Amino acid sequence: MMLEESFQRVWSGLEPIGRNPLTGGYDRFAWTSVDAELAEWFRGQAAERYMPVETDRNGNHWAWWGRPEPGAVVTGSHLDSVPGGGAFDGPLGIVSAFLAVDELRSRGAAPRHSIAVVRFADEEGARFGVPCIGSRLLTGALGADRARELIDSADVTLAEAVLAAGLDPGGLGRDERALANIGVFVELHVEQGRALLDVPAAVGLGAGIWPHGRWRYTFAGEANHAGTTRLADRHDPMLAFAATALAARQAAQRATAVATFGKVRVEPGAANGIASHVLAWLDVRAPADDSVEAVVAEASAAAQAAASHHGVSIEVVRESYTTAVHFDAELTDRIIGTLRARFGEVPVVPTAAGHDAGILAGAVPTAMLFVRNPTGVSHSPAEHATIADCAEGIRALGAVLEELAC
Amino acid sequence: MMLEESFQRVWSGLEPIGRNPLTGGYDRFAWTSVDAELAEWFRGQAAERYMPVETDRNGNHWAWWGRPEPGAVVTGSHLDSVPGGGAFDGPLGIVSAFLAVDELRSRGAAPRHSIAVVRFADEEGARFGVPCIGSRLLTGALGADRARELIDSADVTLAEAVLAAGLDPGGLGRDERALANIGVFVELHVEQGRALLDVPAAVGLGAGIWPHGRWRYTFAGEANHAGTTRLADRHDPMLAFAATALAARQAAQRATAVATFGKVRVEPGAANGIASHVLAWLDVRAPADDSVEAVVAEASAAAQAAASHHGVSIEVVRESYTTAVHFDAELTDRIIGTLRARFGEVPVVPTAAGHDAGILAGAVPTAMLFVRNPTGVSHSPAEHATIADCAEGIRALGAVLEELAC
Repeated sequence: MMLEESFQRVWSGLEPIGRNPLTGGYDRFAWTSVDAELAEWFRGQAAERYMPVETDRNGNHWAWWGRPEPGAVVTGSHLDSVPGGGAFDGPLGIVSAFLAVDELRSRGAAPRHSIAVVRFADEEGARFGVPCIGSRLLTGALGADRARELIDSADVTLAEAVLAAGLDPGGLGRDERALANIGVFVELHVEQGRALLDVPAAVGLGAGIWPHGRWRYTFAGEANHAGTTRLADRHDPMLAFAATALAARQAAQRATAVATFGKVRVEPGAANGIASHVLAWLDVRAPADDSVEAVVAEASAAAQAAASHHGVSIEVVRESYTTAVHFDAELTDRIIGTLRARFGEVPVVPTAAGHDAGILAGAVPTAMLFVRNPTGVSHSPAEHATIADCAEGIRALGAVLEELAC
Repeated sequence: MMLEESFQRVWSGLEPIGRNPLTGGYDRFAWTSVDAELAEWFRGQAAERYMPVETDRNGNHWAWWGRPEPGAVVTGSHLDSVPGGGAFDGPLGIVSAFLAVDELRSRGAAPRHSIAVVRFADEEGARFGVPCIGSRLLTGALGADRARELIDSADVTLAEAVLAAGLDPGGLGRDERALANIGVFVELHVEQGRALLDVPAAVGLGAGIWPHGRWRYTFAGEANHAGTTRLADRHDPMLAFAATALAARQAAQRATAVATFGKVRVEPGAANGIASHVLAWLDVRAPADDSVEAVVAEASAAAQAAASHHGVSIEVVRESYTTAVHFDAELTDRIIGTLRARFGEVPVVPTAAGHDAGILAGAVPTAMLFVRNPTGVSHSPAEHATIADCAEGIRALGAVLEELAC
């Protein structure tokens, strides 16, 4: 069977899971029944390839070709999504990993190192507000105590959610055994920008990941009647938020950064009542840490000023932060050499998107492959990659695994 | 038993229904199980007083002292709430109505006209976005076809909701028989501002209701990745909304009006994604219709400009509008005369809050009594009235019913 056909066959099994039939977007959130279906799909793919699956203490799944032992060449990504997300962000890396294993086997490759396909838990952080929870717990970048107390919008704690999904919350935390097995980690991912479009190239290598973080702004005012409360008597948190949203955009423009308020919660949310609280999440990314800091500082100062003007209080809490990541230079050079010999020049591109590879890079030699996105759109049902480009990505990943494991 | 004690006894039965134990706020929404509990409470109060209860075609409940027939003196209010609302807005009028009946009976009053205590359905419009649905349907101010198609946030239509609650959606609409029975309507309500505080007086009479309406602003942009999408490539509806919120406030200030965005929905709502849609509801009220129009026009022009600047589209839909209401002059004068003779001077105060009485005023002679609110706060758990003031309100309502019915 042609690689393109194999891709379509594997892809089609994953496509219906968690898809909103009205919008075409995906709602694949951690530790839900949809998440369990995704895990079932993963086990099925592993079983078809006679790869035993291990669940580690943090709910990440590992499908093994060879014994779980130190020095393994690990590849994979995640299957969860943002609300209304696209089909490729995450799943492309896992589908490509399984098909790259098929490629190696069809060539009769005999790996000296074990190969593992990993599925990291809760990469997007859609449910508990912190991204890359599975890989952060694995490496200890997120403490188990803090993780267990995270709550979702229905006030369910992460501890309760993992327990309901059959995982012991007491076992969460840095997993020395699982970490020790990882010789190198290579994640393939759909590009979420336009760098490969500009080259143009179907596949590129990641240079690193911009520093990025998420801050929760809580504006607390006073609920009151929208008709009978004079403007002068109001403590309206919506106005302070509005001023902050505009200020954050201006600050990002000045700092050559990006800043986004994409999630907002208004309480109590009556059309005929002044809000008591507005909670808004600010996502900031930039090429350098100090640019991120400058944007957050400027947005917070604007929030402070607007809050005081409107008689409301403001609290800013950093929910997550990932400093600049530079992927392993030696590993990257080795991959460039391999790909150049087989496919010609490979562009090296930066990204402003966070990934499990960004977390793993702090613990083990790590690299990333990107597959071209014809619109650059991501975190949306419009996210896309052509089948031809996906096949190119799988061939490249197969060559990389062969180089590293055989 | 002292009137204050009777009030506390009746009030305490209603207090736990729909109360959020964490915030102390009430979530009493139309056609829900909490709503059914409130109806059960109403039937219980009527039964204690041997008042038969009728449900009209629109789900409003009528408890009768005397036969349902033309010329009846009707009093009452509503039991539903805004999200996280206060205990008094609505319920005070119904509790006071039942206790005013007790007052008349304890004095051996023999009404010439029947007296009815009415509980109007869905006054706040928290669930379907249109306030005063029960009284608007009764008078025909809201057409049955439009009402049946209203949808709540879970995409349940009003037709489905009333059916689930045991009411025939086919019977909705202007109810000639129920209307013909109303000789006069008097609604007692907690004040939602500070006019009676300034006088000061425990009880006042309503002069009229400011014109007011609700507009839905839909900003439609493009969902995309919060990290990898350059500022210049964005179509971020949040920024257009933010500019509009600030502009609406400025417009209200200029027009001596009030304008409020208290309800906002952001889709898809990912912290690491640019929103595709922001839906925001604007509530505007002013002493005169043209001031309301001016504020909405100015806010909409600002929305248009901001939307075009940020490459998003904007649609503005008027969800409801109530023109200026002046309560019946003859009825008001008669009530002033009665109250002055019994309790001394009675202030006449305007209000910017909508009420079922505002809807009824278009069909039958209508008046309102207000009970002092010691903070002016409403649509919030902090909403309050002292027991002494509530008792004063009941005495005043009793005197009014006696004057009109006996």
